[in-house]
Amino acid sequence: MSTPTPAPQTWSQRFESALHPTIAEFNASIGFDIQLIEFDLTGSQAHAKMLAKTGIISAAEGEQLVQGLEQIRQEYRQGQFQPGIEFEDVHFAVERRLTDLVGDVGKKLHTARSRNDQVGTDTRLYLRHHLDEIRQHLREFQTVLLTLAENHVETLIPGYTHLQRAQPLSLAHHLLAYFAMAQRDWERLGDVRKRVNQCPLGSGALAGTTFPIDRHYTAELLEFEGVYGNSLDGVSDRDFAIEFLGAASLIMVHLSRLSEEIILWSSEEFRFVRLKDNCATGSSIMPQKKNPDVPELVRGKTGRVFGHLQALLVLMKGLPLAYNKDLQDDKEALFDTVKTVKGSLECMAILLREGLEFQTDRLNQAVTDDFSNATDVADYLATKGVPFREAYNLVGKVVRTCLAQNKLLKDLTLVEWQDLHPQFEADIYRAIEPRQVVSARNSYGGTGFDQVRSALDRAKASLQ
Amino acid sequence: MSTPTPAPQTWSQRFESALHPTIAEFNASIGFDIQLIEFDLTGSQAHAKMLAKTGIISAAEGEQLVQGLEQIRQEYRQGQFQPGIEFEDVHFAVERRLTDLVGDVGKKLHTARSRNDQVGTDTRLYLRHHLDEIRQHLREFQTVLLTLAENHVETLIPGYTHLQRAQPLSLAHHLLAYFAMAQRDWERLGDVRKRVNQCPLGSGALAGTTFPIDRHYTAELLEFEGVYGNSLDGVSDRDFAIEFLGAASLIMVHLSRLSEEIILWSSEEFRFVRLKDNCATGSSIMPQKKNPDVPELVRGKTGRVFGHLQALLVLMKGLPLAYNKDLQDDKEALFDTVKTVKGSLECMAILLREGLEFQTDRLNQAVTDDFSNATDVADYLATKGVPFREAYNLVGKVVRTCLAQNKLLKDLTLVEWQDLHPQFEADIYRAIEPRQVVSARNSYGGTGFDQVRSALDRAKASLQ
Amino acid sequence: MSTPTPAPQTWSQRFESALHPTIAEFNASIGFDIQLIEFDLTGSQAHAKMLAKTGIISAAEGEQLVQGLEQIRQEYRQGQFQPGIEFEDVHFAVERRLTDLVGDVGKKLHTARSRNDQVGTDTRLYLRHHLDEIRQHLREFQTVLLTLAENHVETLIPGYTHLQRAQPLSLAHHLLAYFAMAQRDWERLGDVRKRVNQCPLGSGALAGTTFPIDRHYTAELLEFEGVYGNSLDGVSDRDFAIEFLGAASLIMVHLSRLSEEIILWSSEEFRFVRLKDNCATGSSIMPQKKNPDVPELVRGKTGRVFGHLQALLVLMKGLPLAYNKDLQDDKEALFDTVKTVKGSLECMAILLREGLEFQTDRLNQAVTDDFSNATDVADYLATKGVPFREAYNLVGKVVRTCLAQNKLLKDLTLVEWQDLHPQFEADIYRAIEPRQVVSARNSYGGTGFDQVRSALDRAKASLQ
Amino acid sequence: MSTPTPAPQTWSQRFESALHPTIAEFNASIGFDIQLIEFDLTGSQAHAKMLAKTGIISAAEGEQLVQGLEQIRQEYRQGQFQPGIEFEDVHFAVERRLTDLVGDVGKKLHTARSRNDQVGTDTRLYLRHHLDEIRQHLREFQTVLLTLAENHVETLIPGYTHLQRAQPLSLAHHLLAYFAMAQRDWERLGDVRKRVNQCPLGSGALAGTTFPIDRHYTAELLEFEGVYGNSLDGVSDRDFAIEFLGAASLIMVHLSRLSEEIILWSSEEFRFVRLKDNCATGSSIMPQKKNPDVPELVRGKTGRVFGHLQALLVLMKGLPLAYNKDLQDDKEALFDTVKTVKGSLECMAILLREGLEFQTDRLNQAVTDDFSNATDVADYLATKGVPFREAYNLVGKVVRTCLAQNKLLKDLTLVEWQDLHPQFEADIYRAIEPRQVVSARNSYGGTGFDQVRSALDRAKASLQ
Repeated sequence: MSTPTPAPQTWSQRFESALHPTIAEFNASIGFDIQLIEFDLTGSQAHAKMLAKTGIISAAEGEQLVQGLEQIRQEYRQGQFQPGIEFEDVHFAVERRLTDLVGDVGKKLHTARSRNDQVGTDTRLYLRHHLDEIRQHLREFQTVLLTLAENHVETLIPGYTHLQRAQPLSLAHHLLAYFAMAQRDWERLGDVRKRVNQCPLGSGALAGTTFPIDRHYTAELLEFEGVYGNSLDGVSDRDFAIEFLGAASLIMVHLSRLSEEIILWSSEEFRFVRLKDNCATGSSIMPQKKNPDVPELVRGKTGRVFGHLQALLVLMKGLPLAYNKDLQDDKEALFDTVKTVKGSLECMAILLREGLEFQTDRLNQAVTDDFSNATDVADYLATKGVPFREAYNLVGKVVRTCLAQNKLLKDLTLVEWQDLHPQFEADIYRAIEPRQVVSARNSYGGTGFDQVRSALDRAKASLQ
Repeated sequence: MSTPTPAPQTWSQRFESALHPTIAEFNASIGFDIQLIEFDLTGSQAHAKMLAKTGIISAAEGEQLVQGLEQIRQEYRQGQFQPGIEFEDVHFAVERRLTDLVGDVGKKLHTARSRNDQVGTDTRLYLRHHLDEIRQHLREFQTVLLTLAENHVETLIPGYTHLQRAQPLSLAHHLLAYFAMAQRDWERLGDVRKRVNQCPLGSGALAGTTFPIDRHYTAELLEFEGVYGNSLDGVSDRDFAIEFLGAASLIMVHLSRLSEEIILWSSEEFRFVRLKDNCATGSSIMPQKKNPDVPELVRGKTGRVFGHLQALLVLMKGLPLAYNKDLQDDKEALFDTVKTVKGSLECMAILLREGLEFQTDRLNQAVTDDFSNATDVADYLATKGVPFREAYNLVGKVVRTCLAQNKLLKDLTLVEWQDLHPQFEADIYRAIEPRQVVSARNSYGGTGFDQVRSALDRAKASLQ
Repeated sequence: MSTPTPAPQTWSQRFESALHPTIAEFNASIGFDIQLIEFDLTGSQAHAKMLAKTGIISAAEGEQLVQGLEQIRQEYRQGQFQPGIEFEDVHFAVERRLTDLVGDVGKKLHTARSRNDQVGTDTRLYLRHHLDEIRQHLREFQTVLLTLAENHVETLIPGYTHLQRAQPLSLAHHLLAYFAMAQRDWERLGDVRKRVNQCPLGSGALAGTTFPIDRHYTAELLEFEGVYGNSLDGVSDRDFAIEFLGAASLIMVHLSRLSEEIILWSSEEFRFVRLKDNCATGSSIMPQKKNPDVPELVRGKTGRVFGHLQALLVLMKGLPLAYNKDLQDDKEALFDTVKTVKGSLECMAILLREGLEFQTDRLNQAVTDDFSNATDVADYLATKGVPFREAYNLVGKVVRTCLAQNKLLKDLTLVEWQDLHPQFEADIYRAIEPRQVVSARNSYGGTGFDQVRSALDRAKASLQ
Repeated sequence: MSTPTPAPQTWSQRFESALHPTIAEFNASIGFDIQLIEFDLTGSQAHAKMLAKTGIISAAEGEQLVQGLEQIRQEYRQGQFQPGIEFEDVHFAVERRLTDLVGDVGKKLHTARSRNDQVGTDTRLYLRHHLDEIRQHLREFQTVLLTLAENHVETLIPGYTHLQRAQPLSLAHHLLAYFAMAQRDWERLGDVRKRVNQCPLGSGALAGTTFPIDRHYTAELLEFEGVYGNSLDGVSDRDFAIEFLGAASLIMVHLSRLSEEIILWSSEEFRFVRLKDNCATGSSIMPQKKNPDVPELVRGKTGRVFGHLQALLVLMKGLPLAYNKDLQDDKEALFDTVKTVKGSLECMAILLREGLEFQTDRLNQAVTDDFSNATDVADYLATKGVPFREAYNLVGKVVRTCLAQNKLLKDLTLVEWQDLHPQFEADIYRAIEPRQVVSARNSYGGTGFDQVRSALDRAKASLQ
């Protein structure tokens, strides 16, 4: 176990008397910022290379630092580097261990750098990494939706407004609505990434540095797209984190909506899907009962992400420039959001891919026993030349008649139809048949089967 | 190490196929709900006693259960009971370990109980315990404020509105404002406690139970003040947690206000307080620089508590009755709030008690070099019979005159005063002397020294 | 129309140059704080009486002020007093009008008072008034629930966990869960009221006043329970408003849960309730379609109240003492919350009273076609002496058998039952009959009919 | 006054009995959605043109509709069209008025359209319009900052971390930090705009329409960049509004930070700026007192925008597809945010342009009386070849010596310097002179004057 040497006197940032232990614990961030370690090492390696390139340290010193940092990385990955609370934060722990490994040259690493720009750099590298992974999870989620949609173009499902059945839909069309939301999420994260991927390194504590550093070189090594043009902004900006939390909140909004639907669909009353045992829990005494834990948890965790977004907004409100210790409290909200969003996307993808079966018989049946085809009767008459509003009013009357007799539209005899309006002919039955009703909504982006097939093609193309 | 036996087939809540491992991890709560263990054990012991008392199990069985649970408590306290993720949650882990310890009778513990009412009971016991501790921390914080105030009745400090100096104050009066806020917090938590301290045990999964349980007996053993009168409400209510988070948010509002002031006061511009080394961090190259980490962190953590409050409100919004898995996500918000509020109160108390020194010379000086005594000139004239508004307008003119000559009121000669109004006499100098200005605000609750002394007495009495 | 005289020079709080018109508009609060006018008048009348009682003004002056203020009240109620933006805020507009009416004595009203303690007093009077009205609305809502529950003790409804049918319930029991939530809301508002009902009048701008006022007298006239004991706290405290918003958020949580259920219940899939035309909107072409607008709007408005709570918490965070202009922005959040909560309670009460019909046939039927009685089979065997876990495992097997044959438990012949376990006898049919299943959950607070009747009695008593 | 005819029977969406008046009021949105009227008219005109182009109505009918709508626009602008609550919403009021104006053809306007896609279109047009105006306000705010910065390149100001003086800065550099934030806001709104500027028109109620509409044509007429590719998504998406509220929240974060600084700067303790009478309020008795109302209000209104963001996230959470009435509640949050952000930007720009004067003497002086030049002493020695850490430790000692003697670094004699280290020479005085200290921080983005001048050039270029 490679525990770094406890901090000697000369290194201390502290004064004559020691920090009160309760306060030391309150201040310490190593309990969570250890998650930044890989990014801290990478950032420090780039910084060391830059110091050598610009002649601030020698090439040999630069090489020593880079190697020492790499060794810490290996120790960490092998579980041998586990610094405790006495090191306050991950950055300090790394620096101490580095000096243990490479001697006094280790103390040169922090030349022309401050904790403020260092932490900012690490956090952006962390977020860029996980943001890319979340985008990948979105792609997997979209792929699952697409596959499912391709299998269910011809499956019908009631479409709802106000949770009242309104018009029958192609199930693929319904699923593609979530594909569209995820596509926006993916694009939004792409926009967020531009602002995450800016390098604050070299901003110093707040004002820049007197050393002849090369910020563009470090930024290039770390694959940043640009550098902060103002050092005060560089050390105090947390927009990128908040913007990410906003985008994450929208992902959770979308997942919570889908979750709500799956919960409804798997109820006894809907029975639109059947949950499988690998994705639900239940009761051994009621084996038919399948609790939709995944969508319930995802729905529940939505509030958590909203809360983190609010927490960071509040944290930043009214802070004077430049760095304030308040900023240290940004990390747990960020880390937990990353974990929550990834877990939610991953579990929802598993659920959709392996954990539920649409009950197609029930679905195709559900669209036949209501009046969601009433509008199509009006359209039928309109195409036969009956003024639309006249047609519309007539149909209202027809439905009321049916209700009174406890009939559906399809149950009316042709005589009855023709009694209602002479222009009804035998083809009325086909016109109000649910599959035809869906098919007829053929406007761009509508649920008509041709439209849905075009939409599937577009969806596939957008995943390339 | 007492690892409970891995769950055998017959115990499983699961079906033919195993839960997908990613979903099992997403579902598992043992990573955090282990914090409930002491309360879970206590709750289960009470339940076992009730089962025996009502004859649902035998007295001997009851005793076995109670003992077995006590043994788990000892194992846990000695670090020997550390269940891993395969046990899903703390309740299940305890039950498994119990059966290992006491055999099949362990399986009787859960008779007439459900996970739903069990978790609800544990959470309330947890919160009641920590709520009482937080109230104790509030009392300590108040005691520190009171002691400080007693030492600073005669210390003056500028009073601000709009962060503009308005009227001089007794520093004790200023500190007692925070005492009053903490007093409200303490009382508010007392009100919250009433609603936390209601027992849901016996609500079953949602509908009660067919067993002849005695809910009032369990409630009495666990020192609850009452029992939930509706089983659906009992398993699905989280008001108590949200209400606590609201009260916690107000505590953080108050601490953040005090934090803001300490940060201002310790700035170079104010220099009203000096931070000591045991409560601040700094720079070895600028030893005079003391960073007010504690108040900055407290101010920063305020957002976090607001975020948790929002998270739980969002979680509950629109959930149909009764229990939904979403509710599992209430715990981390609660636990982190408890930790944050306690740490913040504790550190602020340390800071006030040991970590800062009011710079009384600077403070007493600060109130002499501005026009915050202008109103008192008007009052002076008014008591001499000059109509108030005439006096008021006159003083505005006096101040403008002073400003033009770069003088303060006290710099005016008696001749100048009398030129302004014949009723000014030599006693005007005393009337505008800051100490007199403070002293004169002697209305109930005002900053006059007599009032402050009465307020100190009231404060002391409220701590009894 | 009694427009007060535009503000003359001498009254102005302003300086040499006028306030920029855009900023004047940004600053002005009269657009919303006119809602405080009745409370402002009442507060000023009490203040005037106190000034006279303490001899700060003469009895005749006091009387003039009280009469003048009463006249403004009449003018306002008759729509004749409608001050525009040039008056900045309602307090200033009232003062100007008063001086128009009663002459120079009007200018004495503000003696020993500041805008800061005046606004604080008005806001508390406003909130106390509306808080009492909201409590009254809660009582009406509870009364409607109670009446409905009394009519549906014997109506069965499936009880859900995870939105999966779990156990049948008495519909009254389900409704009484909401009664219990409302009862907590009512009690919680009672606790909030204690802290709302404290009088800050006499705190002055921040430090008290030099006048010999009698704060307890004003407080008594205004029916406050107490006075703020610290003037800084008195002018800067907004806990009472935030605490109210927290309680309001919980009311909305409860209403949103009931809303969600009504939306589900009125869907085609559930058909547990039928919305009536006076409480729903729809489509003339699909007259059977009833959109549950009220519960949808209530559910939607829930976020709005949470948002207001967050807004005020954020507003207060980190504000130094004492008064800051930020505090002006507390009012719209408060006013809108009052309006939203009242409207939501009122409309939900109307909906429950006049706007929906439980479909009792459907409900009583719904509980017969699932396995929510499986636990009762285990209980049956247990009472015949079969060890509970053996019984429990057996029933799991029974249900699986039924599922395989597409049968319900009640469809098994006695022979089949006895093949499964010899202790089944003919009375098993009664034991699993839904009504018996409900009846048997007779633990305190459970859904058993006897329990529900006791609960109704307790509910009635709590409304006395 | 052109009041539309009250709704006759045949138009009603309602049933046999009328909506309960309390519920009608609760449902009505016309009180606020009248703000959409211009966008509703424009959207309807485009829809009418499309109906004519595709032959769904005749060209003459199309022309009649367009003209009628234009007439309503004129009536509205002249204050003659003021529909009351009996019209429920603005869309319905417009449609009624249109039919009054053009007769039965007015009833054809709604062909192939639903309230759901209509409202969505209006809201996006509204937001696009105001988003562009907000971007313009950002540009004006940036221009003011830039002008101010150009005037203050050589003005020094203390730079702070933890509100402790850390290093002196060019005031221009400080101001440009806010320019950079506003630049990100401007760019972020540009990204948001892409997703706002998508047309849902033609999505129908949820499923598209059977009419042969041309969605791309309408979108083109309305200058949308694209159309929603999924009708369910089109009617139920509110991402665009939430994303805007997120961006608006960040604008408020930035303005609240600047506000906090201005409030600090205008305090007696800082005296870095003087507020002018046109942008502050005060007291006639203390004419020197200037309350920074604008920054206080802006800081206070920050919470309001965060609250609106939270409100909309909550509103959307867990809503099943497609349209739900909850969505109606999105508008007030949006409208109020637009108003708040615009007002805040506008007033802050006025304040910076006309309302405050930096006290350059005080500022230039402020940087001379502390140890914020200590690091430069270490740098001085380092450039003379002293190892950095040795230099660093030495300087710590020097500062402690100064503190003990109540001296600043510049007060040390050369002999004293040389006693401390032989390599100090007379040029040390220049090296620690604040102007030199600033100048030396010449890394990219640093506060060195050359860097600041380059930054000003870049800023100017970004405004082109």
